[in-house]
Amino acid sequence: MGVVLNLEDGKRNAASVERLIGLTKDDMARVNELILSKAGSDVELIPQLARHLISSGGKRLRPMITLAAAQMFGYSGEAHVKLATSVEFMHTATLLHDDVVDESDMRRGKKTARMIWGNQASVLVGDYLLGQAFRMMVDVGSLEALDVLSTAASIIAEGEVMQLGVAKNLETTEDEYLSVIKAKTAALFSAAAEVGPIIAEASRNDRAALRSFGTNLGLAFQLVDDALDYGGSSRDLGKNVGDDFREGKVTLPVILSYRRGTEEERLFWKEAIEENQSGDAALERAIGLMNRHGAIGDTIARARHFGEIARDALAPLKNTAQKAALFDVIDFCISRVS
Amino acid sequence: MGVVLNLEDGKRNAASVERLIGLTKDDMARVNELILSKAGSDVELIPQLARHLISSGGKRLRPMITLAAAQMFGYSGEAHVKLATSVEFMHTATLLHDDVVDESDMRRGKKTARMIWGNQASVLVGDYLLGQAFRMMVDVGSLEALDVLSTAASIIAEGEVMQLGVAKNLETTEDEYLSVIKAKTAALFSAAAEVGPIIAEASRNDRAALRSFGTNLGLAFQLVDDALDYGGSSRDLGKNVGDDFREGKVTLPVILSYRRGTEEERLFWKEAIEENQSGDAALERAIGLMNRHGAIGDTIARARHFGEIARDALAPLKNTAQKAALFDVIDFCISRVS
Repeated sequence: MGVVLNLEDGKRNAASVERLIGLTKDDMARVNELILSKAGSDVELIPQLARHLISSGGKRLRPMITLAAAQMFGYSGEAHVKLATSVEFMHTATLLHDDVVDESDMRRGKKTARMIWGNQASVLVGDYLLGQAFRMMVDVGSLEALDVLSTAASIIAEGEVMQLGVAKNLETTEDEYLSVIKAKTAALFSAAAEVGPIIAEASRNDRAALRSFGTNLGLAFQLVDDALDYGGSSRDLGKNVGDDFREGKVTLPVILSYRRGTEEERLFWKEAIEENQSGDAALERAIGLMNRHGAIGDTIARARHFGEIARDALAPLKNTAQKAALFDVIDFCISRVS
Repeated sequence: MGVVLNLEDGKRNAASVERLIGLTKDDMARVNELILSKAGSDVELIPQLARHLISSGGKRLRPMITLAAAQMFGYSGEAHVKLATSVEFMHTATLLHDDVVDESDMRRGKKTARMIWGNQASVLVGDYLLGQAFRMMVDVGSLEALDVLSTAASIIAEGEVMQLGVAKNLETTEDEYLSVIKAKTAALFSAAAEVGPIIAEASRNDRAALRSFGTNLGLAFQLVDDALDYGGSSRDLGKNVGDDFREGKVTLPVILSYRRGTEEERLFWKEAIEENQSGDAALERAIGLMNRHGAIGDTIARARHFGEIARDALAPLKNTAQKAALFDVIDFCISRVS
C-alpha cells in the first residue's frame, strides 16, 4: 500500500513546502514504512483503523519537521526516523480522541474513524498508538527526547481539558484562548522540532531555537486553521467551512467578533454558540459579522505575528537547506489562508 | 485529604494483605502524596476528577506490588515510589477509558467519572494521567523500566481492542478469552512486578520470576473478578452482581456455561448476551445455569491454577518478608471469591 503525501489544502502553494518534502523524501519513506509496521497488530481492528487514518492523508508536517531539524545539525543515525514516527503517532492518537470528544462526523472530507468503527475503537486505538509511540521513543534511548515528548503528551491532554473548560464560553479572553492552543497544538510542533537537535547532540541554544520555532509555528498554524474554518480571507477555500461554528467552538475569530460587537450582536453569538442556533443562516451572519469587525483578518495578523517570531528563532542559525525549508513551512502555513 | 487503603471487598480476609500493607506503608504514604501532586494541574477539572478517582479507593494492589518487588531485592532509592505511582496512573487512565468504552454508570458503588463530568473529560483526563505516568518514568531514567511499562501500555490497549472484537461473541473460546485478559489485565500486574527487580538491578532470573508472578497473579485476579460478577460461589458478596451480564460481556463463566449447555440453553444465552435480554429474571436464570454446569466453580479453579503458577514463580527466591507478602496477595485474590 502506498502512503502518499497529500497536500490537499495547499495546492496553490505546493511549491512552498516542496523543499521540505525534497529534503526529507528518503527519510519520510522510512517513516511511512515504520508507521505501517508499528500500527500493525494481530488484532485486526487496529491496522484497519490505522490504515483509514493513514490514507486520510494529512500533510505529515510534524514528522517532516523532526527530520529536517535533525538533518540541520548533521544527524546521521536512524533515531530521527523513529522519533518522527512517534510524533506522527502522538498526533494521530490526539485526532482519534479529539473526534470522540468533539463528536465529529467528518475530518478532511472523510468520515471519521468513530463514525465507521465507533467511539470505543477510536478511544482504544488512540491509546494503542500512544503506547506504540512511547515504545519507539524508548527504543531510541534518549532520555532527553523522552522527556520532551512525554511532557508534550501531558501538556496536549491538559490543553484539551482546558478547551473543554472554555467550550461555549464567549467570555474567554484572547489570552486564555492562546493558552489553550499553545498546549493543544503548539506543544507537539515544539517537541517535534526540539527532538531534532537533541538527538543530533546540538547545543542548548540550538535546542531552544528549534523549540521556539516549533511553538510559534504551531500557534500560527492553529490560528490559520481557525480562520480557515470561516473560509479564510478569500472565502473560496473550505469544503468544511463552519465546522467549529456548528460545534460551538470559541476560537479567535469568534472571540474578536464577540468582544467588538454591539449588544445585539453579542446576543446573536450567545444564541449561536451557547444555545446551538448555528444553522446555515446563522453561519452566514457570523461570517458577515467577522468581516465587519475584521476578526478574520486580525486572526491572520496574529498568525503572522507568531510566524515572525518563529522566523527570528531560527535566524541566528547557520544558513542551510533545512533552515530555508523550515522558513518555507512558516510561509506555507500562513499562505494557506490568504 | 486523606488517602486511605480501602479493602472493601476483602474484609473477611483483610489479614491476608496486612503484611503487604505493613511492608509498604511508608512507601505508600509517599506514593499517595505523589499521586495527589502529579494529578494536580491549574486546569481545575483535572484535580477534581482525579480526587474523585482517588477517593473511590481501590486497593492499590499494583503499586504495593511494585514497592514490595523493589524492596525484595534490597532497593533503597526513591525510584520505586515514582514507578509505583506511574503504575497506578496507568491503571487509573485505563479505568477512565474503560468506563467510557463500556458506558458504565457505576464503579465500586460510586458514580463513574463519566457520569459526573462526561465522556469527554474522562477520555482527556485519562490521556493526561497517562502522560504524567510517562513523565515520572522518564524522570526515573531507567530505560529498562521504561521499556517494560511502555510495552505494557501498548499491550493493554491492544487487549482492550481485542475485547471489543469478542464482545457479545458467544463462540469466543476459553483460549481467546485468556489472550484478552492476559493483555488487558495481566500485562500491568506483570510490569508492576517486573520493574521492582529492574530498578534494584537484580538478575535476569529474578526479573523473569517477578514478571511471571505478575502475569499469573493478574490472570487469577481477573478470573476471580469475573466469577464475583456472578456472585462468586457464595452468592452473598456482590453489590454489583450482574454488571458484566447486563453489558453483554462474554467472560469465562459465560463461555463455559454456553459451551456446556443444551441447545435450548444456548438460545437463552444468545438472547441474553447478543440481544440484550438481560433483565433480572434472565440474570437469575444465567446464575442458575452457571451453577448447574459448574461454570463459576471452574472459573475459580482456573484462577487457582494460575495462582499456583504465580506461587511457583517466586518459589526459588530467597525467603523474605516481601516474598511472604506476595504469596499472601495470591491467596487474598482467590479468597475474595470463596
